[in-house]
Amino acid sequence: MTDGSKNETAGKPGLLLMSSNWESFLDGALDDRFEIVRLWQAEDSQELLAERGHEIVATLTTRMDASLLDKLANLRLIAVPGAGYENVPVEAARKRGITIANAGDTHSADVADHAVALTLSAIHHLPDMQAHVSSGAWRAGRSIGRRHAMSAQRFGIVGLGNIGTAIANRLDAFGGEIAWWGPRDKPASWPRRESLADLARWSTVLIVATRGDTDGLIDADVIDAVGSQGTIVNIARGSVIDEDALIAALTAGRLGGAALDVFAEEPTPSDRWRDVPNVILTPHVAGVSDESMTHLREAAIRNLSTVLDGGAVVNEIG
Amino acid sequence: MTDGSKNETAGKPGLLLMSSNWESFLDGALDDRFEIVRLWQAEDSQELLAERGHEIVATLTTRMDASLLDKLANLRLIAVPGAGYENVPVEAARKRGITIANAGDTHSADVADHAVALTLSAIHHLPDMQAHVSSGAWRAGRSIGRRHAMSAQRFGIVGLGNIGTAIANRLDAFGGEIAWWGPRDKPASWPRRESLADLARWSTVLIVATRGDTDGLIDADVIDAVGSQGTIVNIARGSVIDEDALIAALTAGRLGGAALDVFAEEPTPSDRWRDVPNVILTPHVAGVSDESMTHLREAAIRNLSTVLDGGAVVNEIG
Repeated sequence: MTDGSKNETAGKPGLLLMSSNWESFLDGALDDRFEIVRLWQAEDSQELLAERGHEIVATLTTRMDASLLDKLANLRLIAVPGAGYENVPVEAARKRGITIANAGDTHSADVADHAVALTLSAIHHLPDMQAHVSSGAWRAGRSIGRRHAMSAQRFGIVGLGNIGTAIANRLDAFGGEIAWWGPRDKPASWPRRESLADLARWSTVLIVATRGDTDGLIDADVIDAVGSQGTIVNIARGSVIDEDALIAALTAGRLGGAALDVFAEEPTPSDRWRDVPNVILTPHVAGVSDESMTHLREAAIRNLSTVLDGGAVVNEIG
Repeated sequence: MTDGSKNETAGKPGLLLMSSNWESFLDGALDDRFEIVRLWQAEDSQELLAERGHEIVATLTTRMDASLLDKLANLRLIAVPGAGYENVPVEAARKRGITIANAGDTHSADVADHAVALTLSAIHHLPDMQAHVSSGAWRAGRSIGRRHAMSAQRFGIVGLGNIGTAIANRLDAFGGEIAWWGPRDKPASWPRRESLADLARWSTVLIVATRGDTDGLIDADVIDAVGSQGTIVNIARGSVIDEDALIAALTAGRLGGAALDVFAEEPTPSDRWRDVPNVILTPHVAGVSDESMTHLREAAIRNLSTVLDGGAVVNEIG
């Protein structure tokens, strides 16, 4: 670093970034306003924080350890570029008067779109249909199984939050029945079933749209309740489903099909799915569109700028 | 045939079937009420009609030559097991007082479902996304292009009949813009563009939902107007699109993608599509679900029975 550049940056407030992803995400937008502190480049991150922690006024992250807060005496804003903030120490930050802002509900629409894309692709057997044309089987006069109509489906939505509601709103126009289950009853346009097991038995398509702490909710019993004629769609989190049980049920024909955007381990090993029939797989992209990424970035930049310029933070949590 | 069975069938009114498909479709349902006259089994169909044409009171078909009518002096009903009756001689039959009944609008919902399935699969790049997971590319850390949000799409529907309207109703919940073009303006919930060329330039997804005589409507100019960032979806008829021009545009990258259920020649040769990028292909199944086939069959049986029992024909064309 030359003396000149050192002078230019001296006195700028610090923005802590913990991975290079977030620097790529900002793409230089705040370089002239903040001193970027790159935690991933430090040989000893504790040393870096001890030396420069007091400079840091803001951070951009989806994940933060509560212990890190103690090292950042002057932190004023945690900008979360997404909807979920379950991995950010909300209570500890609040006690310190640190503002947390997320990106609002920008991605529910994208995730719901993807859930319906997966659902339609599974019900209409699009991969098999494409293979029937591309392999020449159609040309050769071979037959292929007929689908069941969307209007004959019973869509069971697990978790009627923003995403579950957006999915139901999209499916409404297709004429099937819609029901849901979540741990708490609430007013809704669609009937709630008494239990998850009840919903699973009723559903021809079980769509997992839970949030928060629901690890292992869709276990072997729920999978068997959906059954050999049913399909499970997951756009929530991989850990919500017992994935080994899912694979076993698909392989044995005890579950009709699955369409998954999220996995127990990500990226999921391709070998794990090689011999599993009737699966549609996408690489955790449900919430990611060009437009939502632009929106996330703009919201993050706007919120980070308020630390310097004042003005209202958008989508403040709490 | 024994004398006994001959006696049983003697005097039964004749039901003319022109292909074994329709006998499979009926699956014996009317065998005890009609004498089935199997035109495809005749060594000389003209001779068969000359001998037995006067016995025939009804036929089940989607396609009939006007000249055939002259051979069927006592024909009272043409039951069309589908929505389209463009290949049936409606005027000539009407002059003779012959009733024509189709299956009503049973399949618009199925076709619209499939159009939206193809549209979502194309916009969300489901085949590429699945390949990214299955090939191990995701696991290897390789990146994959981001989609554009459904809410950022402009859906252009060519032909706002029952099917086009059903497609628009389904897409409405996804938040994009919708417009349409057809030769005649009419009241609609979505704006009509001035011309097909105008609609094609405006659209990010052009969805072909025409009926009737529209061969070659989607020509090279329309395809180029949709352009390298656009997608064409066809669930109408293969002949509506200049398929050679479509393949050339896809191959040259002048058209972004296509999702097709219908083809210039059906079944389409698989070789024709082998090196064509960004296509989603299904074997002319848009209108075919288990439920719609059951409905078609029941409507046909009910209508054919009215010839014997009286009662009102459903879905009479007139």
